[in-house]
Amino acid sequence: MNEFELIHRLTRALPTNPAVVVGAGDDCAALDAGVPDRLLLFKTDAVVEGVHFQADAPPEKIGHKALGRCLSDIAAMAGTPTAALITIGLPREFKSEWVEAVYAGMNVLARRHEVAIAGGETTTSPGGVFISVALLGWVPRGKSVLRSGAEAGDAIFVTGELGGSLAGKHLEFEPRLAEARWLAQHFPPHAMLDVSDGLAGDLRHILNASRAGAELLGTSIPISREARLAAKAGAGAKPALLAALTDGEDFELLFTVASRDAVPLLDAWRTQFPRLPLTCIGKVTAGEGITIRDKNGTRPLTAHGYAHFA
Amino acid sequence: MNEFELIHRLTRALPTNPAVVVGAGDDCAALDAGVPDRLLLFKTDAVVEGVHFQADAPPEKIGHKALGRCLSDIAAMAGTPTAALITIGLPREFKSEWVEAVYAGMNVLARRHEVAIAGGETTTSPGGVFISVALLGWVPRGKSVLRSGAEAGDAIFVTGELGGSLAGKHLEFEPRLAEARWLAQHFPPHAMLDVSDGLAGDLRHILNASRAGAELLGTSIPISREARLAAKAGAGAKPALLAALTDGEDFELLFTVASRDAVPLLDAWRTQFPRLPLTCIGKVTAGEGITIRDKNGTRPLTAHGYAHFA
Repeated sequence: MNEFELIHRLTRALPTNPAVVVGAGDDCAALDAGVPDRLLLFKTDAVVEGVHFQADAPPEKIGHKALGRCLSDIAAMAGTPTAALITIGLPREFKSEWVEAVYAGMNVLARRHEVAIAGGETTTSPGGVFISVALLGWVPRGKSVLRSGAEAGDAIFVTGELGGSLAGKHLEFEPRLAEARWLAQHFPPHAMLDVSDGLAGDLRHILNASRAGAELLGTSIPISREARLAAKAGAGAKPALLAALTDGEDFELLFTVASRDAVPLLDAWRTQFPRLPLTCIGKVTAGEGITIRDKNGTRPLTAHGYAHFA
Repeated sequence: MNEFELIHRLTRALPTNPAVVVGAGDDCAALDAGVPDRLLLFKTDAVVEGVHFQADAPPEKIGHKALGRCLSDIAAMAGTPTAALITIGLPREFKSEWVEAVYAGMNVLARRHEVAIAGGETTTSPGGVFISVALLGWVPRGKSVLRSGAEAGDAIFVTGELGGSLAGKHLEFEPRLAEARWLAQHFPPHAMLDVSDGLAGDLRHILNASRAGAELLGTSIPISREARLAAKAGAGAKPALLAALTDGEDFELLFTVASRDAVPLLDAWRTQFPRLPLTCIGKVTAGEGITIRDKNGTRPLTAHGYAHFA
């Protein structure tokens, strides 16, 4: 059983109550907190030693990643983060300097986004370090962007460049909070998420939630320098396009907008965010599944993207 | 360095913002969410295999404990829980039935308290299972009970019986939510927390936050049957009183009220909660530290209670 099958089973019968506006299955939960003009966003995520970081990674970057992953999910809903709690599991023997450096990395990122770290918990974890972050945020009512709104004909966009994140970006990425809020204000996406499982797998999440298909333009996928270099490095390496489609942890925004918005969006984006590429990579279709078009024609995309339990 | 020294270091320089009303150092964080009559409570906690439960413990009880610990912290602030997110770390090979049973235990407890489980995250954890719970709740403004309000002369109370929790209660305890809300309404405690580190250690948390001392009555400490049985079992066992003072994970309410409230509270409690003992165990003093009085006189209490990294 992979991660997604397990989640499907677990989320069939979860307790709910009238406060829950968006429950399991999107980037964040959204709750009605009784504030007239906005919804409360609620997110948790964890990074685990040996899975999301290696023991010898710089601790500041581990802290950055732990908080950054949750911030990226608030961005995926077009929200604004406000306060976090940190639960850290540590071996019985630990260096306090190391833990303080993890926190230093989190604190810098939190301050940049005006997020309070309002406490948390430390606990013993004999099997290795884990850091679990819980994050709250706000989104104006009616402005949160879910995964389920993509419509046939929509243009599909992605920020940044994809693939090869393990070379370094997975510890250093910047959550696209400002970009997502700007999008929601000026070119409201029909559907959006942050790319954590890989472009192919995450696009499938949007399409499944929206009951739609997609046609991608193979030559348009923005491939990172790291993925190109790794592919060139030789035998056994993933082809660069496959890396861009299936590597995880890019933490870029993947979204769809009405086709009439595509060109004005690209124009406005270049002025607003001149240093961050935005690329139209294809369109939403009325069918099912993802096809990819390249010089050899159109073929179905079967690569599912990184699944944690695959 | 123990857990409390580490936390002291980490919490010196945490980022904050105007939403934070109560930050690190109490049972929950309390946030101003812009709702006129109430504050948002925010709590995270984790249970770890080999630390908070053994691998062969019944999975339903593991789930119960994971959520119950956070509910107990909402109770300690006299709040009402509303929604939780669950992050679960699993080995690469896991049984989905086991995970579903963990969730079944959480779901039953959540439903009993009308708490929604609004999603979460699954991740790989090669070093063993952990379950991190994030929980939101509400408390009327001005009614949250902190650790810092104890005053010299206050009577000190504890619910239930203490010690020997590892014999079973640590997996089965009921968070004292209704009791805490009733207290806040009828006999507002000056200070309150839930006993997780052991009575002596947790009372010290209240006293340090309140800059006060305490005198306990040794013969009044309510000792659990399990602690008594273990002490009788023979050589090497903890004396029963020491177990009641220092064993962790009782998840009972420890609180102080004005001395004039002590007798009326005991009377009213017996009517309201006839099945749950409430015991006056001593009084808050103007001094420092904790003394304990028994037939041999008064002596300082040095046992610190269970500290996770001791």
